[in-house]
Amino acid sequence: MKDLLEIRQEIDKVDSEIAKLYEKRMEIAGEVAEYKIANGKKVFDREREKAKLEKIKAYAHNDFNRKGLTELFEQIMSMSRKFQYKKMNENNPSGKLSFFPIDALDSENIKVVYQGVEGAYSQIATRSLFGKNSTISNVATFRDAMEAIEEGVCDYAVLPIENSTAGMVTDIYDLLVEFENYIVGEKILKIEHALLGVPGACLSDIKRVYSHPQGLMQCQKFLSEHRQIEQISMANTAMAAQKILKDNDATQAAIASTYAGELYGLEVLKEKINFESNNSTRFIVVTNQKVFLKDADKISICFEIDNTSGSLYHILSHFIYNDLNMIKIESRPLEGRPWEYKFFIDFEGNIKDSSVRNALCGLRGEARNMKVLGNYKSLDEKEN
Amino acid sequence: MKDLLEIRQEIDKVDSEIAKLYEKRMEIAGEVAEYKIANGKKVFDREREKAKLEKIKAYAHNDFNRKGLTELFEQIMSMSRKFQYKKMNENNPSGKLSFFPIDALDSENIKVVYQGVEGAYSQIATRSLFGKNSTISNVATFRDAMEAIEEGVCDYAVLPIENSTAGMVTDIYDLLVEFENYIVGEKILKIEHALLGVPGACLSDIKRVYSHPQGLMQCQKFLSEHRQIEQISMANTAMAAQKILKDNDATQAAIASTYAGELYGLEVLKEKINFESNNSTRFIVVTNQKVFLKDADKISICFEIDNTSGSLYHILSHFIYNDLNMIKIESRPLEGRPWEYKFFIDFEGNIKDSSVRNALCGLRGEARNMKVLGNYKSLDEKEN
Repeated sequence: MKDLLEIRQEIDKVDSEIAKLYEKRMEIAGEVAEYKIANGKKVFDREREKAKLEKIKAYAHNDFNRKGLTELFEQIMSMSRKFQYKKMNENNPSGKLSFFPIDALDSENIKVVYQGVEGAYSQIATRSLFGKNSTISNVATFRDAMEAIEEGVCDYAVLPIENSTAGMVTDIYDLLVEFENYIVGEKILKIEHALLGVPGACLSDIKRVYSHPQGLMQCQKFLSEHRQIEQISMANTAMAAQKILKDNDATQAAIASTYAGELYGLEVLKEKINFESNNSTRFIVVTNQKVFLKDADKISICFEIDNTSGSLYHILSHFIYNDLNMIKIESRPLEGRPWEYKFFIDFEGNIKDSSVRNALCGLRGEARNMKVLGNYKSLDEKEN
Repeated sequence: MKDLLEIRQEIDKVDSEIAKLYEKRMEIAGEVAEYKIANGKKVFDREREKAKLEKIKAYAHNDFNRKGLTELFEQIMSMSRKFQYKKMNENNPSGKLSFFPIDALDSENIKVVYQGVEGAYSQIATRSLFGKNSTISNVATFRDAMEAIEEGVCDYAVLPIENSTAGMVTDIYDLLVEFENYIVGEKILKIEHALLGVPGACLSDIKRVYSHPQGLMQCQKFLSEHRQIEQISMANTAMAAQKILKDNDATQAAIASTYAGELYGLEVLKEKINFESNNSTRFIVVTNQKVFLKDADKISICFEIDNTSGSLYHILSHFIYNDLNMIKIESRPLEGRPWEYKFFIDFEGNIKDSSVRNALCGLRGEARNMKVLGNYKSLDEKEN
């Protein structure tokens, strides 16, 4: 038997030859790009790639290699495509994108909408994002906010999409799919819940607590130490505070921000009752134009997956083969089709990048109902 | 300029050479496997692979190719490893696995536990999974059920893990990470919620409704048409039914199964109020032994991701390069570390498969706190 060193030398020889051929293939891919640019032909030719894979399979001498070669050439063809997109970008850097590039969000005389009553965390986020030159209004539901944007009555909506303890705000995800509005920015707000009661109320007398379901969830540890308190769901934490003021009952309390407490003249019975000291919520800024900030660095997409195909494996290969880093992946059950899912993926990149264009192009063909929800960036001020 | 046909012929020539070299490389990988089997050496040699990638990078003549070659050889080395695991399995098919293979779950004189009071959907699932030869008991919390299993007081626990409309049952995911219990089977149960009141009650008089938060969520459409009804969260749908019986108040109702209604002598005020007609819940069967059914076809794992590394991209490449189909991927925020996630992935396979061993081995090194939660299969009867 050969020893490991000998075998490894053989492998090294094979590998250097593969590397040479790979570089040669990319060189030829460059010629393909030049031809396609000169003749106005598109990069992605699904039929040609399929035929190519059939040819490749015929080279294999056993099943293991047939499978291996198929996967290997799926990756090589993806790389080749990415190289062609890169060449195209160099040739025509202002190439038409489906999103329109902008330098900054509007900031003068704009109308911004949030969901909930005054005192909601959404109001706090909106005020910190849009300054004195904006008119801030509020609506009853997330859907109302989406409609105000779609109609153009408001320029931007500020909506909560994810909380660091409670996870995704599922309604917003569903609305992003339904409406043709786009994410243009995001902001993270630190959330601190307080237990609020009418002036003179006392924690030990509280029998019922009102809050948003996420507010209740985030204060689970506190509430489990006070099992006598009944938990009642409300549409909004600020609405819960409002109710406490209105009912004027010393056995009732709300879980909301201290800002809401001030607004409604309530007393803080206990501060910071969320069990997670780093509790924060990510808000997105949504508009009705298909635009992106030129220095955007994050893309959100969603798509459905067919039960029949190789499905998630094939879909995710478009990210892997394009070296795109996924930040987050979430699945939501599809209504009426049990155990089928809609996926939401956040990944790093700008819609101009050749790797992003390559991945989106591949995804479009394989996933069902693929939609780019936006290409955006953090609007947190740098000073934080 | 050459025409496209000419260029494509050149590509075909390069590709056939790459294919030949790939097959040669796999042949040599077979020799490596023989050497390793004979000398008791492990397949995965992280240091060797790192050194190899450095060498490969040196072959490249530009940055684009450097990146491309690195990715290409990561895939080729993964394929080579998979081939070596395959050889090992052929050589020693009973090779020691970290999970012990069993032919069937115990069925005689076993003790099974579920969470909730009598009438819970978990009880319905448990009864359909384990027949007359088992003793079925119930506990107050999911944690109690996990503890009963860990101590060996009960043989199996039946726990809800996911609902087709409401999504994941997050507490169960967290407990699977915390306890050293393992999933050995799963079952899907169709869920139909009814509105239950005391005998003689009438839908139009109902002012308060009690149910589990998921029960309330699943009946959102019905409840939004009856906005006068206040929604109160309970630990369990059956507990809600029990409360209605105890309070004996005609303005109160519960959302629970008709089975719970019968059990507590309540009247069905309205049947099938879940807005999703295909509403169903997936239950898992959990035990304290690290075992798997020989014909198991699904694996659940979880892991955390380091913020610093290439992270999700690298992790998922282990599934892609091993041709493993992911069925589901969920993320949960990590407590105390905002915007870091724990991931839960379900994929198809059996722990004996060389591709599964290869992927798990790769994941172990790159993810933090990787844990195999179980290798299992559906225990639904075939007749359905």
